[in-house]
Amino acid sequence: MKSNNYKINTNLIVGEIGYILSNVKVKQTENLINQIILADRVFLVAIGRVNLSLQCFGKRLSHLGFKIELVGSLTEKPATKKDLLIVASGSGESIVPLHITKKAKKIGCKILHITSAKKSSIRNLANYVVELNAPTKKTKLIVKDSLSDSASKTKNSIQPMSTLFDQALHIYGDIVSVQIIDKLRLNKINLWKNHANLE
Amino acid sequence: MKSNNYKINTNLIVGEIGYILSNVKVKQTENLINQIILADRVFLVAIGRVNLSLQCFGKRLSHLGFKIELVGSLTEKPATKKDLLIVASGSGESIVPLHITKKAKKIGCKILHITSAKKSSIRNLANYVVELNAPTKKTKLIVKDSLSDSASKTKNSIQPMSTLFDQALHIYGDIVSVQIIDKLRLNKINLWKNHANLE
Amino acid sequence: MKSNNYKINTNLIVGEIGYILSNVKVKQTENLINQIILADRVFLVAIGRVNLSLQCFGKRLSHLGFKIELVGSLTEKPATKKDLLIVASGSGESIVPLHITKKAKKIGCKILHITSAKKSSIRNLANYVVELNAPTKKTKLIVKDSLSDSASKTKNSIQPMSTLFDQALHIYGDIVSVQIIDKLRLNKINLWKNHANLE
Amino acid sequence: MKSNNYKINTNLIVGEIGYILSNVKVKQTENLINQIILADRVFLVAIGRVNLSLQCFGKRLSHLGFKIELVGSLTEKPATKKDLLIVASGSGESIVPLHITKKAKKIGCKILHITSAKKSSIRNLANYVVELNAPTKKTKLIVKDSLSDSASKTKNSIQPMSTLFDQALHIYGDIVSVQIIDKLRLNKINLWKNHANLE
Repeated sequence: MKSNNYKINTNLIVGEIGYILSNVKVKQTENLINQIILADRVFLVAIGRVNLSLQCFGKRLSHLGFKIELVGSLTEKPATKKDLLIVASGSGESIVPLHITKKAKKIGCKILHITSAKKSSIRNLANYVVELNAPTKKTKLIVKDSLSDSASKTKNSIQPMSTLFDQALHIYGDIVSVQIIDKLRLNKINLWKNHANLE
Repeated sequence: MKSNNYKINTNLIVGEIGYILSNVKVKQTENLINQIILADRVFLVAIGRVNLSLQCFGKRLSHLGFKIELVGSLTEKPATKKDLLIVASGSGESIVPLHITKKAKKIGCKILHITSAKKSSIRNLANYVVELNAPTKKTKLIVKDSLSDSASKTKNSIQPMSTLFDQALHIYGDIVSVQIIDKLRLNKINLWKNHANLE
Repeated sequence: MKSNNYKINTNLIVGEIGYILSNVKVKQTENLINQIILADRVFLVAIGRVNLSLQCFGKRLSHLGFKIELVGSLTEKPATKKDLLIVASGSGESIVPLHITKKAKKIGCKILHITSAKKSSIRNLANYVVELNAPTKKTKLIVKDSLSDSASKTKNSIQPMSTLFDQALHIYGDIVSVQIIDKLRLNKINLWKNHANLE
Repeated sequence: MKSNNYKINTNLIVGEIGYILSNVKVKQTENLINQIILADRVFLVAIGRVNLSLQCFGKRLSHLGFKIELVGSLTEKPATKKDLLIVASGSGESIVPLHITKKAKKIGCKILHITSAKKSSIRNLANYVVELNAPTKKTKLIVKDSLSDSASKTKNSIQPMSTLFDQALHIYGDIVSVQIIDKLRLNKINLWKNHANLE
């Protein structure tokens, strides 16, 4: 391994993540934060690596004092119409998240969808959407020409599969957490009091 | 597969489980029930199949309205001295449960240990013990001679490994749940209201 | 808690489990064992406590040397038409298991369904069925009159919800494991060599 | 929420992550890659959000064709001295990872530790170390003065708790995956053939 390669890859990957995160629409993040604060409980559903990133977000929200339920967990409470379901899926077509969303919709939960797809079955059911414009199996990375806002072009991510979506989701969850801490004037030191202490 | 074998094995296995469950000391079950009712939160820790059986118990206790925390789960709350740790381990020496128990003890949690070992590192730390006399790697199944209470002999379970312990634990948890439902006069139909509804 | 109640409940519950297990059709267990042996990989899907019991079975099958994949697990391999999906659901209508079954069917996996429902969406898709006649939300426990094989009547289980199904499934998996050990003349002592050793 | 705040936080957080990743020692990443390639199986252990990030890495390594075992998973295989344990812990003192590491060390596994601590109980047991210089409960973020390599100063991360460690670990795992794809000339399109297909 050449040292150069590591530095180059690191710069490219961190650059890709930063690009996606910078381009999230302000209104979409505002909706996410408001819905989390308004909800009685926040349910989370996703699969694979995306689920791991969403769980990172859920764990931090739990530290911030919100009532978080991971769909399928041992002690999951029943959902009601006062609850929010956050469903993350790059393609918006993942089977399990789609069917959980349908069920939550019937119960009357608000649905917030985090995705990189412009159209999808889950998106059709969502009350709110957060777009992380990571490439999917079907789409390339969209980059704006730096000199001109009007022109945009696409290129391949240097990363395999839908890596950029789960990376961006992980970091996005933490940016949102910082925004919530600021908004609610939470004391960072006090967060440890909600942190598990047996492991 | 001969039909006979299936019937014979079923009778033997159900008999082994019934035998172990019938011989749990009344006082030990009373302590378990009282400690669950008294605790602010009930934390659970075990590994492998024993963990799966303990989670079955935890899920039902959660339906009964108790606050259950699975050690290591996404939304685990911090433990305090008002909490109960239920630690299940046939040998009483499993590494992770042992060290979680040590930590819980320091915090001041009550420790209730479900085991088939007469002496162990975890048992030394426990405030309360429930003995399920299943055979372990080291010990055989203990059966009382049916004609005389004073004599007892040992034999091999027909099942591999420590199967009888996790089976007995699963069913024991459900017997205890029925006892709690009776004791607290809970309405069985209302239990569904605490049941997850998204899956 | 009266000592009597514990003994009575234990006898009733162990009796209920024994009754259900004794009445599994021989041919259904034969099919299950043959399909597990024939399959390249065995995938498992269920939810809630039923999932915990199915995982108990999966863990033991893994010790017996079979390639087991828990749907949704970190290192889940892709399924092919040489694989078996075991889908357990009392009602046969659980959303996630149903949709995983549909997808597995499309891929060409064999579907084996463990259930207590006579008719269901999952049952319609299954190549093989194992019936554990536990009561569901809709049905009572079916008990044969002990004096006459022709008459049968129904009664309520003393246990809440669908407890009997997950209990029976746990023990059934272990009876099947004993049958497989016998059939393949596996050495019980050698099973420990497939057992995880880090915890 | 002001649009400005989101952009500022995003830039700061992505900057913090990029800074940490750029400063990983080349030799440490070389060791990690070589040990993964040499190992028979790669076992993973961590807790909390760090565990989620480590699982992201494990899932991708599994797609790349490596045999990955999550300590505590249903189908975990026994470890041998041909195996590698990757243990991630910011502080290097987490109880469960520490005791799993001790057990793996006795079995003869190679131990690779990913940490932000200069000294720790786990680090004492490790054959190889990867340092991600994120701040911990005890330490601040270390930043080199951009004008002079010799001077360095510390500052607080804008993020709560040990967030930077799990973020950096997630992205670091993916940079390493790209390095491995390049080194072994793996075909990115073929990675999907190892990807789960039932969900």
